[in-house]
Amino acid sequence: MYNFVFQNPVKLIMGKGMIAELSKEIPSDKRVMITFGGGSVKNNGVYDQVKEALKDYDTVEFWGIEPNPSIETLRKAIVLGKEKKVDFLLAVGGGSVVDGTKLIAAGLLYDGDAWDLVLAHEPILKTVPLATVLTLPATGSEMNNGAVISCRKTKEKYPFSAGYPVFSILDPEVTFTLPPHQIACGIADTFVHVMEQYMTTTSQSRLMDRWSEGILQTLVEIAPKIRQNQLDYQLMADFMLSATMALNGFISLGVSQDWATHMIGHELTALHGLSHGHTLAIVFPGTLRILRDFKGDKILQYGERVWNITSGSRDERIDAIILRTEEFFRSLGLTTRLNQERIGLDTIDEIERRFNIRNAAYGENSNVTGKMARTILESCL
Amino acid sequence: MYNFVFQNPVKLIMGKGMIAELSKEIPSDKRVMITFGGGSVKNNGVYDQVKEALKDYDTVEFWGIEPNPSIETLRKAIVLGKEKKVDFLLAVGGGSVVDGTKLIAAGLLYDGDAWDLVLAHEPILKTVPLATVLTLPATGSEMNNGAVISCRKTKEKYPFSAGYPVFSILDPEVTFTLPPHQIACGIADTFVHVMEQYMTTTSQSRLMDRWSEGILQTLVEIAPKIRQNQLDYQLMADFMLSATMALNGFISLGVSQDWATHMIGHELTALHGLSHGHTLAIVFPGTLRILRDFKGDKILQYGERVWNITSGSRDERIDAIILRTEEFFRSLGLTTRLNQERIGLDTIDEIERRFNIRNAAYGENSNVTGKMARTILESCL
Repeated sequence: MYNFVFQNPVKLIMGKGMIAELSKEIPSDKRVMITFGGGSVKNNGVYDQVKEALKDYDTVEFWGIEPNPSIETLRKAIVLGKEKKVDFLLAVGGGSVVDGTKLIAAGLLYDGDAWDLVLAHEPILKTVPLATVLTLPATGSEMNNGAVISCRKTKEKYPFSAGYPVFSILDPEVTFTLPPHQIACGIADTFVHVMEQYMTTTSQSRLMDRWSEGILQTLVEIAPKIRQNQLDYQLMADFMLSATMALNGFISLGVSQDWATHMIGHELTALHGLSHGHTLAIVFPGTLRILRDFKGDKILQYGERVWNITSGSRDERIDAIILRTEEFFRSLGLTTRLNQERIGLDTIDEIERRFNIRNAAYGENSNVTGKMARTILESCL
Repeated sequence: MYNFVFQNPVKLIMGKGMIAELSKEIPSDKRVMITFGGGSVKNNGVYDQVKEALKDYDTVEFWGIEPNPSIETLRKAIVLGKEKKVDFLLAVGGGSVVDGTKLIAAGLLYDGDAWDLVLAHEPILKTVPLATVLTLPATGSEMNNGAVISCRKTKEKYPFSAGYPVFSILDPEVTFTLPPHQIACGIADTFVHVMEQYMTTTSQSRLMDRWSEGILQTLVEIAPKIRQNQLDYQLMADFMLSATMALNGFISLGVSQDWATHMIGHELTALHGLSHGHTLAIVFPGTLRILRDFKGDKILQYGERVWNITSGSRDERIDAIILRTEEFFRSLGLTTRLNQERIGLDTIDEIERRFNIRNAAYGENSNVTGKMARTILESCL
């Protein structure tokens, strides 16, 4: 186990009807900007619940934070927020709305162009307080200090480190009306978030391994049940809690992390607009295929504990485990190959080029360079 | 899953040599009272590390917080702290020192007798900030807001709810020199902390079940190895992390809790001075024996996932699982029967009497009354 420092101050408020708690949590003298994505919250009752809870507050609404939130959109929100002298932000939406609002929180206290804050690749310390009402379990952004922002103009997408939400409200009932494709992407995203913190070397922490496996086992158990009945509160509550716990620091205490799959996936989104979770479902099996010699022991442990794959030679078991993992993503209703999305060698060329420009060396062993990314992606064709 | 609100603000600082971080964490203008138990920290190097880290601070030392910290001792610390105008507390020790210091933190800002604060059975909100350097993994007090205080005079022992530590430093190396009996009690304590949050009904949260089982599986794996080699850093780090994670709220999100075993165990400590973890190793198998009809489904799940017990009839499996659990505690080097500690029916009479006086109805189903406690204890003779 490596030395570590951990602190996660987010207040998690979870359950049926908890959106009504908003007025207890936001100081009454705050001028609140509420940020939204598209209009889905107007159809599923979330908008009405939020407005009802905040009826005595001075609020401003900002609509239109898109999937893979763009700096182009967020600049507009920052202008509006400054104009209205906003001093509290409430993100109502999925990971994209939350991520975008994290940049707004920083941008409101920054005089220059907020894209500078992303390009600086340094933690942002000065932010307006923000809270969230989550509508799509996936990114974990509701309980961490990370975000990912895109630039449409340059087709770039980068992670950055911002403030933690003050609180996040998770009502599993808001997931009942989500499109099945979004749920599939959310499950894939959660699964691979765990993998980025788990699929490294063995024996760093038995406990962290068990907790990561616990999320994976939960996802494997609930995913087919959710496909059958998305209105089951207990299932959706476990999905929602799993997504949050997969990226709030609780499973990465003192262990190595990887994140190469994410870095490749971000490029696929930037270049082709594929949903984030979907890109991970395509890339992650490729990461396993190509890095199997480095990750072999952990692949075997994962296969035994999550898939009960214990027979055959070492190589046979690893083959079976990788196949089973790809099969799991397909069982969610996702494609797992680039050619199924009409993505070919030109995209792979471009991603290799981008990785080379920034001297990329991602992954637990810093060996996912441009060339390695090419090899991984070629295995995903 | 029940609705819940969760927030744990403790900064966890874990690893080799991390005691040196103290001076980064405590504001330099603070007048710090450092609280200790007996003298063991003078032999294992912890005292020297703490003093070195705080050499530029204005400090006061208070020694002698005993196992199961007594109000009689803590009153003296409060008098000293008030006299010296202490405004920061650093507990250096195990759960007893941390628990005792939580009461000191409240008592320093209270004008009356601090025992009132315990008897009030209400959360204490006004406290001096406190931090910890943990020397014995067991109680989880380093990352929660609970404490248990005893009164020697009346032979009473009660839990109370206080403030969270600002930060806690966990260096696994400080455990290398612990007496094996203390380690055994720490493992038993951790094991039963998990059980109090897990051994209830099934299907409340698949994820919380997995995480609880993950701690139990870790303890079962490391306990015999620790008996063989207490100097293995990785083993002791996993033990230390498990103990903290077993009682910091991370495994009780949205699920029922029990705590009847603890309430009975506290009485055994109050009346006979038995170590807390040891009392749990005696009582918990009794709780399972007597409440098996209420907890049967969860016992079966626990037996399958933690002990791989899957064959036989339902009753046979439950029998085997309870035996295996008691065997585990014995394998730690602990006795698991009251008569082995020369505790007999007169003690059981007294505990029943005490439970009756307070109309006790503990446990997930509020059915552990005085009479039920008697039945449980009689099964532990």
